[in-house]
Amino acid sequence: MTDGAKGGERLMARLKELSRFTAQPGEMTRLYLTPEHRQAADQVAAWMREAGMEVAMDAAGTVVGRYPAAAPGGKTMLLGSHIDTVRNAGIYDGNLGVLAAIEAVARLHERGERLPFAIEVLAFGDEEGVRFPVTLTSSRALAGLFDPASLDARDDDGVSLREALVAFGLDPDGIAALRRDPSQVIGYLEAHIEQGPVLEAQGAPVGVVTAIAGATRAVVEVSGVAGHAGTVPMALRRDAGTAAAEMVLAVERLARETTDLVATVGQLQFQPGAVNVIPSGVRFTLDCRSPRDEIRDAAIRALSEQFSEIAKQRNVTVEVRGFYDEPAAKCAEHLVASIEQSIAERNIQPIRLTSGAGHDGLAMVALCPIGMIFVRCRGGISHNPAEHITTEDAGVAVDVLVDVLRRLARRNDPTSMPNSG
Amino acid sequence: MTDGAKGGERLMARLKELSRFTAQPGEMTRLYLTPEHRQAADQVAAWMREAGMEVAMDAAGTVVGRYPAAAPGGKTMLLGSHIDTVRNAGIYDGNLGVLAAIEAVARLHERGERLPFAIEVLAFGDEEGVRFPVTLTSSRALAGLFDPASLDARDDDGVSLREALVAFGLDPDGIAALRRDPSQVIGYLEAHIEQGPVLEAQGAPVGVVTAIAGATRAVVEVSGVAGHAGTVPMALRRDAGTAAAEMVLAVERLARETTDLVATVGQLQFQPGAVNVIPSGVRFTLDCRSPRDEIRDAAIRALSEQFSEIAKQRNVTVEVRGFYDEPAAKCAEHLVASIEQSIAERNIQPIRLTSGAGHDGLAMVALCPIGMIFVRCRGGISHNPAEHITTEDAGVAVDVLVDVLRRLARRNDPTSMPNSG
Repeated sequence: MTDGAKGGERLMARLKELSRFTAQPGEMTRLYLTPEHRQAADQVAAWMREAGMEVAMDAAGTVVGRYPAAAPGGKTMLLGSHIDTVRNAGIYDGNLGVLAAIEAVARLHERGERLPFAIEVLAFGDEEGVRFPVTLTSSRALAGLFDPASLDARDDDGVSLREALVAFGLDPDGIAALRRDPSQVIGYLEAHIEQGPVLEAQGAPVGVVTAIAGATRAVVEVSGVAGHAGTVPMALRRDAGTAAAEMVLAVERLARETTDLVATVGQLQFQPGAVNVIPSGVRFTLDCRSPRDEIRDAAIRALSEQFSEIAKQRNVTVEVRGFYDEPAAKCAEHLVASIEQSIAERNIQPIRLTSGAGHDGLAMVALCPIGMIFVRCRGGISHNPAEHITTEDAGVAVDVLVDVLRRLARRNDPTSMPNSG
Repeated sequence: MTDGAKGGERLMARLKELSRFTAQPGEMTRLYLTPEHRQAADQVAAWMREAGMEVAMDAAGTVVGRYPAAAPGGKTMLLGSHIDTVRNAGIYDGNLGVLAAIEAVARLHERGERLPFAIEVLAFGDEEGVRFPVTLTSSRALAGLFDPASLDARDDDGVSLREALVAFGLDPDGIAALRRDPSQVIGYLEAHIEQGPVLEAQGAPVGVVTAIAGATRAVVEVSGVAGHAGTVPMALRRDAGTAAAEMVLAVERLARETTDLVATVGQLQFQPGAVNVIPSGVRFTLDCRSPRDEIRDAAIRALSEQFSEIAKQRNVTVEVRGFYDEPAAKCAEHLVASIEQSIAERNIQPIRLTSGAGHDGLAMVALCPIGMIFVRCRGGISHNPAEHITTEDAGVAVDVLVDVLRRLARRNDPTSMPNSG
């Protein structure tokens, strides 16, 4: 049995085991700072210890497992992902990256292999941003991006983030001190399901991420004039609905014509919403993403102009209000190259791709070089119970993680080969 | 003071007085068979009696005021409209036609003027169809179109139409007998606010309706595939939202290009409706109206084909389910001509227009020739507290009603001039 197959099998079994910790039996729902988050954290901590790590939970709820360096005084390489999920999620998103990292360390530990740097496996708790109207709380804390004002954010039950942290046994005022010293961190490496169809279409088990797309989100409000569907002639209408329809198609057209841009209208509703009333208003959301900030910025400008022109021609008004803006995070070229070489050595075509979804790397890039390995997922489906990966592909991801760590070790300490036991 | 100005002033004062009978003080809401319907019916009955009419309520809740003919055995001319309203309505829609008809009869009564036919003023109770999922119950009953199955229709509180009629003191089983003998009815004449902007745009206080548009309503369901807004490339999307947007614009385009057709998408919503999820489904409504049935039928066929084509090109599916289909009602040419002459004699340009909104005439046309006079309304606004007409225009409507009755009298009994007292 190869390392890959062995690592893949245990990893898949543990992913299934971890999925038991859910708010709702039969579906995967694990929000930040909930009892099921605690249960999952305890299980992850146990597996970390089994793999030779010292484990603690930090003030933001991140489970941190530390595998010491060959000698004291070394820097630290960070691996990880998140163990929170969306509601009714799949069991791989996030959890895969945490358990694959543990598997990689276990592989070193089983051989008594120590590297010239310490390895820390991080199981973040707030990547999905589902419970509170904030996100990446746990990785932002490490990167020094944590905003104390977010402690006042409240969940749907009115519980503040501060209250939830205290109820979880944590000290909210300790979060500021979680900031790491960039000079002591080598990088951050994460394996994650692709959440898209590219690797599957190309027949590749894993791929290397070159950048995590930045995203701009906006609410667009179109205001026209309601009217009787039978009595107002077409030429006299100020129909917010048809104006919005034209805007939706403008969004699609621009994204289709622009390389490295995706744009989506996910929410849209006519007001007042009666069969016999010309719509007076439409509210819709716009989500634009690109691995290149200048492309995303240009798209938002172009769309705002097109919306205004459409509104003007139709004698309605439009307002665009951005409510989220996250720059793209470029993966470090030496990590990209290292992952690429590791993939190629396994006789796999090394596909470079960008991540359209957000990840903890969006925060970690402020601290250190980041790298990501994507794992093929069936149908590109994620955030859905149908989310699926194969045991073999999971095993390849662990192999690549271990290989990249060893490459870093050679690079980090060129005079010494890793201490193989 | 002219008859018109005098009639207009009392009419406007009574419209205001009648608006007190509402479910909600401060707004105009009067649904079928409610306490406020009863109060309004009693007030209308009192004004009918004052105008020389004998008054009764029929088994469908219609207040019927009868002004006798000059001699026994004459036929009957029907005037009227409805006293039910939509929720948060204006005070003119429906009520104007009932009170203008009473005003017209009052003008004859004040002079002791009897015509060779009886006049009945009808205050229908179910034109808007808001309370029960049926409509035109009261006029259908007279026209012999009443479907006993509609007695089982239930309102939002679970009360059946049958139960509501009984609670109102009526005998549901008596409705079938309300059917009038067509040979005894001369016609049905109704004054109503235009509910559109045509007369205002043309500077005309009143206009003559040539037909009430037929209407087809359908629900359209577009089904695509949900996906992550960041990770699914534009070319691989099966976006129900952009497909629906293209269909909405197809509806508008066809209606703009087709004379005598209006078409509206009034309800539309994306599913699941998340900012970062490609819409998997869209449900929208289609409302097509035309005074010519063949145009409406062709439009529905053309749109169904275009929707299928759009769905095919976008790899989504579409289903069109019609749920309402009402043929157009043509106004009788002799009534149109009579109204037109009466308008022209007042030095008003006689504008011919069609009614995009439905009216009791849609049912009454099965019984007898119908005619409608439209009254200019500000901004074309109706079904809204901002609904407004002027005293002068209301007065003109009464003048035209009286004049048309006298013309009919001459036509109906060419050997005798009306008996003027």
